[in-house]
Amino acid sequence: MLDIKPPYLLFLGSEMQKEFLKTAYGLVEWRRNDCKGQMRLSADVPDLGLPDLDLEQAVRCGIRTLLVGTACIGGGFSADWIVIFARALEAGLDVAAGQHRLLNQDPLLRATAERTGRNLIDVRVPPKDLIVGTGKKRSGRRVLTVGTDCAVGKKYTALALTAELKRRGTKVDFRASGQTGILIAGRGVPIDAVVCDFTAGAAEMLSPPNSPGHWDVIEGQGSLFHPGYAGVSLGLLHGSQPDAIVVCHDAGRRHILGYPEFSLPTIDECIERNIGCAKLTNPGVRCVGVSINTSTLGGEERRGYLKNVSSRLGIPCVDPLKGGVGELADRIEMEFGS
Amino acid sequence: MLDIKPPYLLFLGSEMQKEFLKTAYGLVEWRRNDCKGQMRLSADVPDLGLPDLDLEQAVRCGIRTLLVGTACIGGGFSADWIVIFARALEAGLDVAAGQHRLLNQDPLLRATAERTGRNLIDVRVPPKDLIVGTGKKRSGRRVLTVGTDCAVGKKYTALALTAELKRRGTKVDFRASGQTGILIAGRGVPIDAVVCDFTAGAAEMLSPPNSPGHWDVIEGQGSLFHPGYAGVSLGLLHGSQPDAIVVCHDAGRRHILGYPEFSLPTIDECIERNIGCAKLTNPGVRCVGVSINTSTLGGEERRGYLKNVSSRLGIPCVDPLKGGVGELADRIEMEFGS
Repeated sequence: MLDIKPPYLLFLGSEMQKEFLKTAYGLVEWRRNDCKGQMRLSADVPDLGLPDLDLEQAVRCGIRTLLVGTACIGGGFSADWIVIFARALEAGLDVAAGQHRLLNQDPLLRATAERTGRNLIDVRVPPKDLIVGTGKKRSGRRVLTVGTDCAVGKKYTALALTAELKRRGTKVDFRASGQTGILIAGRGVPIDAVVCDFTAGAAEMLSPPNSPGHWDVIEGQGSLFHPGYAGVSLGLLHGSQPDAIVVCHDAGRRHILGYPEFSLPTIDECIERNIGCAKLTNPGVRCVGVSINTSTLGGEERRGYLKNVSSRLGIPCVDPLKGGVGELADRIEMEFGS
Repeated sequence: MLDIKPPYLLFLGSEMQKEFLKTAYGLVEWRRNDCKGQMRLSADVPDLGLPDLDLEQAVRCGIRTLLVGTACIGGGFSADWIVIFARALEAGLDVAAGQHRLLNQDPLLRATAERTGRNLIDVRVPPKDLIVGTGKKRSGRRVLTVGTDCAVGKKYTALALTAELKRRGTKVDFRASGQTGILIAGRGVPIDAVVCDFTAGAAEMLSPPNSPGHWDVIEGQGSLFHPGYAGVSLGLLHGSQPDAIVVCHDAGRRHILGYPEFSLPTIDECIERNIGCAKLTNPGVRCVGVSINTSTLGGEERRGYLKNVSSRLGIPCVDPLKGGVGELADRIEMEFGS
């Protein structure tokens, strides 16, 4: 498991598009107390509402890690960024990133890190000691967010549910399976970067045995109905051996994102397929609720939609951004005891 | 795609156990005409029935590739093997292997290959230009062997069906997805060595668009019911977008190999789950037959068993080693036209 030391200075480079800063936005939303500053290379870069700090100011504030908050397609670094990262190491900071291009493969950064004794943390590198999934029953409870598609709120729902259970006094951990989730959690396993023979095994490592009353809330990936990523989702489902699943969906989505020929499955189909597959490693698995992004619906329409889905399926149906995930936590307590 | 030039000298090292020579046995069974010799380092090594040749004799016979026929657990090479492989390169042979340890990572072998202009062919390396699965419909027909478990005859059935269709004049290619299959076919994609985001995409590359009457017979991997490997199987299933599947099974198997806590699914469950998942990328998919290893049954019992399964499911049920796969080819011709 990775260990990224807070507090953080969020590096935004000269990225002007908010969607390519989703890692930084996720960190500000979920790790606000650990985000002590932002570093922008141009005035056009969105303001996250954090103090603008340079490297020396960051060190004086007690910041320990420069965290790359961009998530552009292709996942590269420009040459001037590399120079800044090297200066951050010299100043006494660790540097962490979740890009495809690895910090640790840059000769200047490696040499600088070795000399200064600082750490370069690449989030998108799977652990070295991967195992093939064993299917062995582990102690503790697990809930996994699954989806009708990618980008339907699996990470957000898992984080919100973790926070809600924690608020109620449940022993709970968020288990991150993707790069932004890992940066938010400070640890996790980048499931999508694992060689496929080891996907389920990596998921087993992600949520190890725990005490009987403990819950792991595991961030899902992809969808069993995604023509590219379903294998990732199935390996994660089997290795997670969830006691409960929450199905995530976007009410405005008509087809798989980027795959116009593939209709989204219904929520019912998604529950049925996930439960059918999940029974392999946990015969007692059940669906405890549905989490829907209803941002495309008006207030009245939203309430009707959520109520309709909930009464048809007989389980809670929430929009975590509009009313929270309390009903999901209620259901978990009702089904498994609080 | 790999290109391993025949004919071959099969290198057996000093391996005495037949099960660790399964790659060599597979090659002798399926590529008999290309196997011109064997190289054994001790008299205790099983005799494949090929001439024993040294490297110089092999070159004089027109052999072009030294092919490592061992498949031991862990997949290593001993130091004395490396010296022999280097001598093979010097003598003018390519060297090919499907081990975890890569020929191309050995400094002596790399230097020798560069100097001599010969090739080191590592079978278990995925292509570099991998794509995420697109789900786009490809021309040509495809049949995929799937299984209730690992090691139930998926490769054998695919090879036998390829041979039978070819005998009948159908344009057909065997598409190898595992290391032994790739060495037999001389090409393929080692699906289990692909990073899981790219599993379905690798399967798409394995069976590219083809002419309308052409069939690809695709070697399956693992099982949707395997607690470690189901994600591999699902990615391969989606990327293959099969028109037809053949379910492979071992009549004597009670639980997943090496997983005593996991019962084997029934053949019916295996068909239903595979068809349910395969419809995502090919809504017209159907199961054209069952291929069963009945080596644990007596003759009378076998005939009753196969007939029973066949009449219950309404599709052919064969043991490819006892009577061949003609009925599977009949069914394919009946369903899709010959």
